[in-house]
Formats: sequence, structure tokens, C-alpha cells
Amino acid sequence: MERPLPAAPSPERHQPEMPPTRWGDPDHAPGLGESARALVELAFGLHPRPAAAEVELPPSRLAPAHREQLEALLGPDAVRTDDAVRRLRTRGKSTPDLLRQREGDLDDAPDVVVRPGDHDQVQQVLAWATRERVAVVPFGGGTSVTGGLVAHRGDLAGVVSLDLGGLRRLIAVDPVASTATLEPGLRGPEAEALLAEHGLMLGHYPQSFEYASIGGFAATRSSGQSSAGYGRFDALVVGLRVATPVGEVRLGTAPADAAGPDLRQLFLGSEGAFGVITEVTVRVRPLPQVRVYEGWHWPDFTTGAEAMRALAQSDLLPTVLRLSDESETAINLADPGRVGAGQEAAAPSGGCLMIVGLEGTEAAVAAKRAAVRDVLEAMGGTPLGEGPGAAWAEGRFAGPYLRDDLLDVGVLVETLETATFWSNRERLYRDVRAALEAELGEGTLVLCHISHVYPTGCSLYFTVATPGGGDPLARWLPAKAAASEAIVRAGASITHHHAVGTDHRPWLAAGIGEVGVEVLRAVKARLDPAGVLNPGVLIP
Amino acid sequence: MERPLPAAPSPERHQPEMPPTRWGDPDHAPGLGESARALVELAFGLHPRPAAAEVELPPSRLAPAHREQLEALLGPDAVRTDDAVRRLRTRGKSTPDLLRQREGDLDDAPDVVVRPGDHDQVQQVLAWATRERVAVVPFGGGTSVTGGLVAHRGDLAGVVSLDLGGLRRLIAVDPVASTATLEPGLRGPEAEALLAEHGLMLGHYPQSFEYASIGGFAATRSSGQSSAGYGRFDALVVGLRVATPVGEVRLGTAPADAAGPDLRQLFLGSEGAFGVITEVTVRVRPLPQVRVYEGWHWPDFTTGAEAMRALAQSDLLPTVLRLSDESETAINLADPGRVGAGQEAAAPSGGCLMIVGLEGTEAAVAAKRAAVRDVLEAMGGTPLGEGPGAAWAEGRFAGPYLRDDLLDVGVLVETLETATFWSNRERLYRDVRAALEAELGEGTLVLCHISHVYPTGCSLYFTVATPGGGDPLARWLPAKAAASEAIVRAGASITHHHAVGTDHRPWLAAGIGEVGVEVLRAVKARLDPAGVLNPGVLIP
Repeated sequence: MERPLPAAPSPERHQPEMPPTRWGDPDHAPGLGESARALVELAFGLHPRPAAAEVELPPSRLAPAHREQLEALLGPDAVRTDDAVRRLRTRGKSTPDLLRQREGDLDDAPDVVVRPGDHDQVQQVLAWATRERVAVVPFGGGTSVTGGLVAHRGDLAGVVSLDLGGLRRLIAVDPVASTATLEPGLRGPEAEALLAEHGLMLGHYPQSFEYASIGGFAATRSSGQSSAGYGRFDALVVGLRVATPVGEVRLGTAPADAAGPDLRQLFLGSEGAFGVITEVTVRVRPLPQVRVYEGWHWPDFTTGAEAMRALAQSDLLPTVLRLSDESETAINLADPGRVGAGQEAAAPSGGCLMIVGLEGTEAAVAAKRAAVRDVLEAMGGTPLGEGPGAAWAEGRFAGPYLRDDLLDVGVLVETLETATFWSNRERLYRDVRAALEAELGEGTLVLCHISHVYPTGCSLYFTVATPGGGDPLARWLPAKAAASEAIVRAGASITHHHAVGTDHRPWLAAGIGEVGVEVLRAVKARLDPAGVLNPGVLIP
Repeated sequence: MERPLPAAPSPERHQPEMPPTRWGDPDHAPGLGESARALVELAFGLHPRPAAAEVELPPSRLAPAHREQLEALLGPDAVRTDDAVRRLRTRGKSTPDLLRQREGDLDDAPDVVVRPGDHDQVQQVLAWATRERVAVVPFGGGTSVTGGLVAHRGDLAGVVSLDLGGLRRLIAVDPVASTATLEPGLRGPEAEALLAEHGLMLGHYPQSFEYASIGGFAATRSSGQSSAGYGRFDALVVGLRVATPVGEVRLGTAPADAAGPDLRQLFLGSEGAFGVITEVTVRVRPLPQVRVYEGWHWPDFTTGAEAMRALAQSDLLPTVLRLSDESETAINLADPGRVGAGQEAAAPSGGCLMIVGLEGTEAAVAAKRAAVRDVLEAMGGTPLGEGPGAAWAEGRFAGPYLRDDLLDVGVLVETLETATFWSNRERLYRDVRAALEAELGEGTLVLCHISHVYPTGCSLYFTVATPGGGDPLARWLPAKAAASEAIVRAGASITHHHAVGTDHRPWLAAGIGEVGVEVLRAVKARLDPAGVLNPGVLIP
């Protein structure tokens, strides 16, 4: 029953930088195996499409005086304008971002990359940027998939990429309150390794875990694969320190309070538009004694989803709870451990695969495992044992690597996600699938899983694979728009855990209304009077 | 093991209005029994202090044209300026509020009480008030204990009490998503009775439950006696509809999302300063099959608190979890079922009484009861059986009635509450007690209980009783200030579940900083450009 920590939360403190046109650590890339390659050839054909060899960056437009001022603030080593560094801070890791990078399009490169070493230096950079009217784009892990790292220059005097890699300390651990204060530049594995030295963990494992940063988790309202048990990132945050152009904000005097609105929830999800998060205090937990991940088979997606609802509404959620629809389950059976959820199953053919993960003390896991099993069996599930769970755990962070391999052979792959109430789940699923299939045409695979579950509803995470053709970006953008329209028509959220960025801006008002947008504009205007903070993201 | 619903969630849909100088329904007032009276006489002496017989309201300053305009909007029956109605909408139910009312001081009476019947009428009143520069004070249950119902007139043309008693429908129930949409004027028992017709409950039971309203729960970030199991009110809210002077806001497209900041958390706790909440969509649950409330004895407050922490950090929280300190436990033993937590115990003398309540299905309650018992026994608790639990459940809403009886005999009684992280609990407890005792002098009783528990910390709820003397208000205000100073010096929250109102405004900036206050001002200015919404509350 015991199982080592998942592969990726390794104690390595300094992964290599991600390549500009691909995801992740090249040494971790599993590569497209023989059987998968054969499957892809059968489905889509192989049309090798390497990244452009020749790449030219637009020259830095940083004024010499500005460079001198930044160097005076931060020291010369913390101010970089060379092409290699600027290229690595250009855009994020959405498929459109990667496609543009692969084509050699680096128009969105920042003029300069600066690396402050502490909160005060961040504060100084913001004061300088406000005075000089220079855009500031905070850069944590660089894993945005919604265009969160593309500054709109407008009439500003330049674009600074504010690399938070210099702020990566564990500042404090409070073992009594079970909290820890982390700096924003810490990546997922680094944060977990530092906490593990105290026998603690954060337990936040989005698919971007290897590279995504603490600050990014907070700024984008991230949710991880253990959200059922440990909560979304916003639920884990008890305190924040934020640098803004008008001064510092510290929030979180108590676990919960009634002293007015909860302003933490205004900075969580603010995507660098209201300020730069420089410290995050989170709830931590003891490292689990036991981790068990099991597979369950369901006759269909709806039956499995109803079982998830039953668990959530009985306060019986396990740590991890995921359900692939029939298509995703079939693909995973055909190509074990790879696409989408990265699952494998020695399962009955057809139907749907669910992963149920439990972590904690031996006694707590045993008790909940029995209670969960009772519900799942009563609702028509068939246990598949730990094999599918182990396969899922092994492949849990592999999706983005596989996407690169598919882009290499001309297959367009992208994901999108949404969330809704249980009573609206079937409609949302049907409508988004239909919109994607109608836009992308025959030969398109649309896969879906539910990976975040609440008492009142759940997320839906779609993976799309389709022949890329001559201009995959031109194929994808209308499909994304069609899916987004279907989502807002169904009354669902435009994003469950990927933030607004620039890509989702057109649909934000559908969720919060024009008055809601005005509230964001008012906060932005007060905190960022010069409009230099990540201009273009979040606010329409 | 089965137990009927607690006494107060009765199906009565229309309780009588509260008297202007007292709490609650006169028919529910338990009265000061003989033994309690003797105890009070011994401790404080009896100094009968009836409310003033002669009361004069300041004349309504409503301009005749304004009256005509309001009547045109709402109909003549919904616009009232008679003294009786205005008196019942003057201030809330804090001890200072009651003392002022008892003295016949009604200076803060509104000029007119209006009672819109739906969202659109609320919207129209706000547009009118903005145009005519008239203050609007939303009135739900009238149970504020922080001065939330006292409009600062400034140079505005008058004060309207916006009585939400005309909005008290259950608008929708979604049994699949387990949500319900409620109007803000519904009081606690009414809302529960309407939901019970569907086999559902909200499960939010603050001590003010009999009179407090759904809108008030939301506007003040309320927390109820079952918060350990069912969550604070803000955690129960999935959607809001808010009328503001610049238009309507609807929030809550999904159980959770990442589409920017969570604006629901900006309106929760906004105390009528940003808009008027006209619909609240909440998570609901099936009515429990079983309710068990038990007593546990602890040798001291710290040992009991550590056991609470262990439960919270093991994800083993029962539905109700409360712990009285040694003083509160002793008082309850001396005067069963009355003061503060209203507890009784056939307990070992000395030490501290804990109440552990479990609600749910028979199987779930049995499983958790066993797990909780294991932890509590291992940590040094002694089970006292269901007697103390039944006494607590019986007296759970009695505190405010008892306060009136004590004020009648010249005893000054008031409560205040705060919250902090577990590692700061002892300091906060010690410092607040010391501040109150130093300010109020000998013969002052300071009682405390923990009634809201989180993985990272807890609330502390203090009850103070002291001889009122000739001017009890003048005695109380410096003590409240001293306690508030001690709270903010200890880095704790100025209020865990009673909102800012006007009383806590001086200490708000200690919690959210000057930049945090600027954020609130910016939102207020955008949504309420004329500054007519509950002026004087929340924002320093």
C-alpha cells in the first residue's frame, strides 16, 4: 500500500530552464513510443514540422537611461537584455504560444529581463516603472497557457519581464498553525522539497507542477490534481504580501475573519495586474504515510460522474478523483499512459476509467477507502486495483511533453477547461464537444475528463487532437472561440484553473458582468495608476 | 441517538418584531431564574435599571417631494415615516445600541422606512437615492452588533432604512447541484423551514439565528455554531445578485473558477457599502438523519484547545465544536444552561467543558463519532455523555435574552470576538482578558470560548459581565477600545464573525493596511459614486 512520492516532486532545486519552443525538462521528456507513433500515424498521418532554425528577436527597445536606472536599483547582473534570456521570457506554454515560437515569431519579446532579489527590490522596480511608464510582466514559472505573459505595449516606454526567480526562499514554517510562508519564485518541486525537510507538504500538483511557481499558483487561482482532498490553491492560501505601485499590502490576520471583504480573494487571480505577489502563506500538512491510487471502471461517463457527485455531496471526497470520458479512456487503453490524463487500465473494454487516490495516515486512508468503496460499488463501479492508479501517477505530469511530440509530427493538440454545477454538466459537455467538432471537422478527437470535484459541481477538461494542416494556429483560434462561446452560452466558467490572461478576456464579462468588470477597473486604477502592471491581461 | 431539530429552527414563518430596547421574541425569553438571580445579586448586586418610559424620536427630515417620489416607486404602503416603525429600525442589538435605546436616545432614527418587494424595486431605490443624495441603510434582521445600522448623515439629504422584509422568497432549489437561491429578507428559521419542505437545510446557526437574515449573513461574513461541519456562511455561498447604484451584478457561474479575482468575496462582508444583496445562492444539504451533541471534560483550556487543533488538522472536525474556558465552565456549572455558551454539565468540578456535535447520516455520524472519540480520549478528554450536549442545544440561542435580563438589573454584559492562528492563541487569550480586566477593574467576569475551528487557527469569543454603574456605556466603550488594541497588537482579526460596522472601523487598517483600505475606497467610489450606501460603515 505504501508508495514513494510521485516522480516529479523531486528534491532537485534547480531544474534547467525550459526550451523556448517546448515544455519542460528535456531529460524528463518521455518521447513518443513506437506504438503511440503508429497510432498517431494511423489517426492523423505524420507530417514532420520542426521548429524554425532561424530565429530573430526584435531588438530591445530599452532606453539606455532606463537600463542605467535599473542597474542602479538591482545591480548589473540582475538586468539582462541579451537575446537568449529575452527569448526564454517570451510568452508562455499554450499551444498558440508554442506554435508562434516554433515559427520563429518572437514579436512579443520583452525589452529587458530583471531579477530582483527581495520584496523591496520588487517594490522599487514597480515605483520606477510607474514613474517611467514602462510595462512590467511578472514571470514565475513561465507556464501560462492563457497568454498571461504577453504585455500590450500601447504607448508605454518599454516592457520589462520581472523574473521572480530571485525570490525563492521558504521564509517561515509554523508547525503549530500548520502554515508556511513561501516566496513566489519557488517552483512546485522546490517548494515541496523545502517543506519536506520539515516533514510537511503543500500538496498542490497541477500538471505544470515541475515548472509552475508559487506566485503563479496564487496569481492564476490554480487548482491541482489533489484538489478533492487538499483544496484549490486559493483555499490553501491564508496570507499574501503584495507589492503594488502605491505600496505594500499584507493580508491574512486570521484563518477566517469578518473584517470586511476578503481582499486575499481579490489578489488571488489578479495575474499581475494589481501588483506582484512577493510572499504567500499557505496551509501545509504532514507528509502522508500512505498513498493509494486505484482504478475504477464505469459503464459510461454519466454514471461515473454521478458517483463523483455522490462522494462530494457526502463529504467523502478522496485526495484525487478523476474520471475520463469514453473517448479519453479508449485512447489511453490504445496508448497506455500517455494522452490527456495519462492513464492505463487492464480494464473491461469500453466505458470509463476513474482514478481514486487516497493519501494520509494509514488509519485515515483505510477508513476513507472503505467508505469510498461502498459508495462506488453501490453506484455501479468496478474496482480495477492499483495498476491503473500507478500508471496515472507515473504519467501525471507527462501531458505537455507529449504535446510537443505531436506538434513535431504536425498534429495540433490543445486543451481547455471549464466548470459548472452538476445539473448543467451534461449540457456543457455536449455543447463544448459539439462546438469543437463542428469547427475542426472530421478526424478530430475530443477527449474529456473531470478532475476537480465540488459538492455543487465539477470541472470539465477537454483535450483536442486534430491534423494541424498548413497553419495550425489558424485552425485552432476559431475552435477555441467556438468552444468559449459554447461555454458562456451554457452559463459555465470560461476557465476553472488557467486564469484569464489575454486569451479569455473577451469572455470575462459573460461571467462577472459589466459592473464586475468596472470593479476590476476601479481596483486597477487605484493600485496601478500608470497602467504599467501586466497591461492587457485580465481586464477587457 | 436521534434528536429533533433544535428548538429555534421552528417552522414559524413570521416571528414578531423585536422590541426596540431588547433582543428577540418576548415569548421565547427564558427569564432570569431564581438561582441565577441569586448568583447575579451575589456577584454584582441588583440595581434595577428599566428602560426609559418616555421616548421621543427626532422628527423625520424626509422632504415631501422625496416621500412622493418613493411612494411613486414603491406604492404608499411601502413608505413609512411613523415613529413606531422608525423606532424599530433604529440601530442594531449591540449592548451600546441597547443602552442608548434604553436611555431613550433615538438620535440615529432613519427618516423613512421603505420596503421594496423585489430586486428591481431595490435597484430603483438606489438610483433614486443616488440622484437625490439620500443615505440608504439596508435592514435585514436588525441584529447588527457592530453599529452596522447607523447611517452617517454627513451632508446627505436624509436617511432611508431599506427594509428587506419584502424580499423573503425561496427563489429556486437545485437538488442535483445541492444549491438553493434565497432572498435576503428571509430570516434563519424561515429559510430553514422553506428548505425543509424539500428535505434540505442550510445549516447556518449563529446565535442571532432567530432574527438574522440571509442578506445579513452574507453582508457581514457570518459564521454559525455548526461552522466546523458546514462552514462559515461565506463558504456556503456559491452565487450572489447585488443591486448597486451603477447597475446589477450577478456572480457565481461555477462552484469554483479561475476567471480573475473572486468578486463574490468582495461583496461578502461589504455591509451594504457596495450594494444591496438581493439574492444569495447557497450550498444546501440533506436534513441530517441523526444529531448527537455530547459533552467532554478537559483539565484546562489549553489541553482542550490542543485537542481541537488535532481534530482540525486531521480533517476530523465534527459538526459543532466548542470549548469554554475555566471561567465560562464554572459559571455554567453555577447557573446551568444560561451564560455565554449556555452549557450545563454534570461534570467534574473545575476544568473546561467541550461540546462536540455530530450531524448526518447514521453511518457517517457513527464513523466520525468513533474517530473523534479516539482523538479526544488520546489527548486527555473525559466523555460526559449527551446531557451537557442537550443543555447546550436547548440554550444555544438564549445568550442575548439573558443579556437583557442582566441589563435590567444594572449588570453590564457584552461580547466580543476575534480569531488567530493556533500558535498565537494563548497570547491573544491572555492579552484580551488582561486588557478587559485592567479597564473594567475588580469584580469583572471575563469568560471565553472557542466556537469556530480551522486547520490553521480558531476564534476566541469573550463575554464580559461587570457592574454597570451609573453610566454603563461610558464604562464599556474604553474597555472595548482596550480589547481592540490588544487584538490588533497581537496581530489577530478585529472580528471573526460580526463585521466592521462603525464600531470596528478604527481597527480595520490594522488588518488590511492602508493600501487595502484604498482598494475598498476605490470599489466604493466606482459602485456608489454619490456615497449614499450605508455611509459610515466599513471604510475608515
